[in-house]
Amino acid sequence: VTPIRVVQWGLGAMGAGMARLVLSKPGLRLAGCVDSRPDLAGRDAGTVLGTGPLGLPVSADPARLLAEQRPDVVLIATTSWLAEQMADLETIVTAGADCVSIAEEMAAPAVADPALAERLDKLARAHRVSVVGTGVNPGFVLDLLVVMLTGGCHEVRSVEARRVNDLSPYGPTVMRTQGVGLTLAGFAAGVADGTVAGHVGFPQSVRMISDALGLGVDRVEETREPIVSAVRRETPHVVVEPGMVAGCDHRCVGYRGATPVIRLTHPQQVRPDLAGQATGDHIVIDGTPPVHMTISPEYAGGLATQALAVNLIPHVRRAGPGLKSMLDLPVPAALMGEPAYLRQP
Amino acid sequence: VTPIRVVQWGLGAMGAGMARLVLSKPGLRLAGCVDSRPDLAGRDAGTVLGTGPLGLPVSADPARLLAEQRPDVVLIATTSWLAEQMADLETIVTAGADCVSIAEEMAAPAVADPALAERLDKLARAHRVSVVGTGVNPGFVLDLLVVMLTGGCHEVRSVEARRVNDLSPYGPTVMRTQGVGLTLAGFAAGVADGTVAGHVGFPQSVRMISDALGLGVDRVEETREPIVSAVRRETPHVVVEPGMVAGCDHRCVGYRGATPVIRLTHPQQVRPDLAGQATGDHIVIDGTPPVHMTISPEYAGGLATQALAVNLIPHVRRAGPGLKSMLDLPVPAALMGEPAYLRQP
Repeated sequence: VTPIRVVQWGLGAMGAGMARLVLSKPGLRLAGCVDSRPDLAGRDAGTVLGTGPLGLPVSADPARLLAEQRPDVVLIATTSWLAEQMADLETIVTAGADCVSIAEEMAAPAVADPALAERLDKLARAHRVSVVGTGVNPGFVLDLLVVMLTGGCHEVRSVEARRVNDLSPYGPTVMRTQGVGLTLAGFAAGVADGTVAGHVGFPQSVRMISDALGLGVDRVEETREPIVSAVRRETPHVVVEPGMVAGCDHRCVGYRGATPVIRLTHPQQVRPDLAGQATGDHIVIDGTPPVHMTISPEYAGGLATQALAVNLIPHVRRAGPGLKSMLDLPVPAALMGEPAYLRQP
Repeated sequence: VTPIRVVQWGLGAMGAGMARLVLSKPGLRLAGCVDSRPDLAGRDAGTVLGTGPLGLPVSADPARLLAEQRPDVVLIATTSWLAEQMADLETIVTAGADCVSIAEEMAAPAVADPALAERLDKLARAHRVSVVGTGVNPGFVLDLLVVMLTGGCHEVRSVEARRVNDLSPYGPTVMRTQGVGLTLAGFAAGVADGTVAGHVGFPQSVRMISDALGLGVDRVEETREPIVSAVRRETPHVVVEPGMVAGCDHRCVGYRGATPVIRLTHPQQVRPDLAGQATGDHIVIDGTPPVHMTISPEYAGGLATQALAVNLIPHVRRAGPGLKSMLDLPVPAALMGEPAYLRQP
């Protein structure tokens, strides 16, 4: 078996985890790492990853690295936004490599920018490579899994999914974008000026579900409400006193005309357990037959995003050329041993 | 949009439900029905289906019907066994139609007979059509869903899935093959002579999971134990007195060497509620991270099998030629409105 040669672009918390996972899989070979941070350029990637020396210097010149290494696949973890990632995606595609991105907007890129999505699709077809966006959410829990659970339904009237998680492991950036530790007035001001953004990816998840089922959603509404804590909650990065905001109860509804057909809810907060709230994922299909699913505790966030990107490698290799979504590919599977598809390039 | 033209082969409980579902979908057109039962031949399919006249006589001559109608897809629901269905599958493929089968052995046909599976794959490639086996189980709950839930895992040590259902809606044939209403001695004799068969499809589910993840299962063991009832249980078809058998606790373990890596359990009985047992599907991934999933009550059996077959139609149309499994196709989705893929032939 010839291992699949992989370049990891972006060595933040997600990207570093993806690179370490690539290193752990016998069917994959880490062929290089890219990061734009000046303090990383030229350092041995293994030192940065904490795995011991690998003889792979971190490159700040991705076009050159890709031309020299000619990897089969590039995993990119640099930003949530399509517009910010577009030039890098074009570099990857032009170099003739398949690409897996964990940018949230890449789960359904036409939502953010149909013109960019079309340009990327055409470029990928021209270079005979495939590009796909994935991640735990959007890309898996609140969309792909919802779609799959309707597979046994004769009819679906509406779907509802709720993901309750604990933000405690995260640092200052997440605390700020979720409004953790703010007063009620501060939270309202943050929502108004966009600094309290909540979850990135609801419109993408709604689009994926609506397109897959043909639910005809023509309007999406998002609301962000403060989760006011009745108790003191503390993490290494924040203290929330009673009466302060512990997180953002972010909801999204997809309407077909006046009818709500998709409801997604993702309250994100620190230490929900202290308020008697268990974490978990809950999907309800109002259909014939109905479906009620629970994953408890919730499907892991960061770890799952890293794994999904790496586990998709065989799928993106086998996909036909163009811009793909998780709805176009076979179900992802953990890559243990030598999965059958590593033997079928 | 040109509707996809579908022939339904087999009008038993499953096949009739599939035909009615095809009739209900605007993107699909029922182009004919096949059944070998002499009392059905020539009757209007709509009368048989209870939908009112359709102007489609039930055909007992499938080769002729397929030659005349040239359907895009044939759904076949005639038997659980590959060897019994092989000639009919060859007729379908030779006629140039894609095919969805709900025969349990067709979920992973190489398990039952690698030579037949290879012959079918070659024939399908020669005729540029695709063939896939599906159903709620095997094909969805105890295999595809298990695989999908490992997609976010860095590593998987073992998987376990348990499906608890209620056989009350089923008739005499199912009561007999599950041993319902027997004495303990009768159950043991039935297991010994094969009349108490339990669930059909465990080795297929194990193969699907092992192949998708690369778990390297080299041995499968099945056990069938009586579910002895402590209470009286009654359905329209059977009475189980205390001390009698209410069903079959059928289990399957897939080993890699001496290590059990896949455990599937499917206790099937009448009225588990009377013994305080709730129905449901439970999947546990012993991995990094771990996953615990529950669907409660269980993912519906017969209804879901019918829906999966029909909902796969766009996927089997778009699949490349050859013998496919649920692991090769995108996730199934309920066909509501005009799903995007109906517009992309």
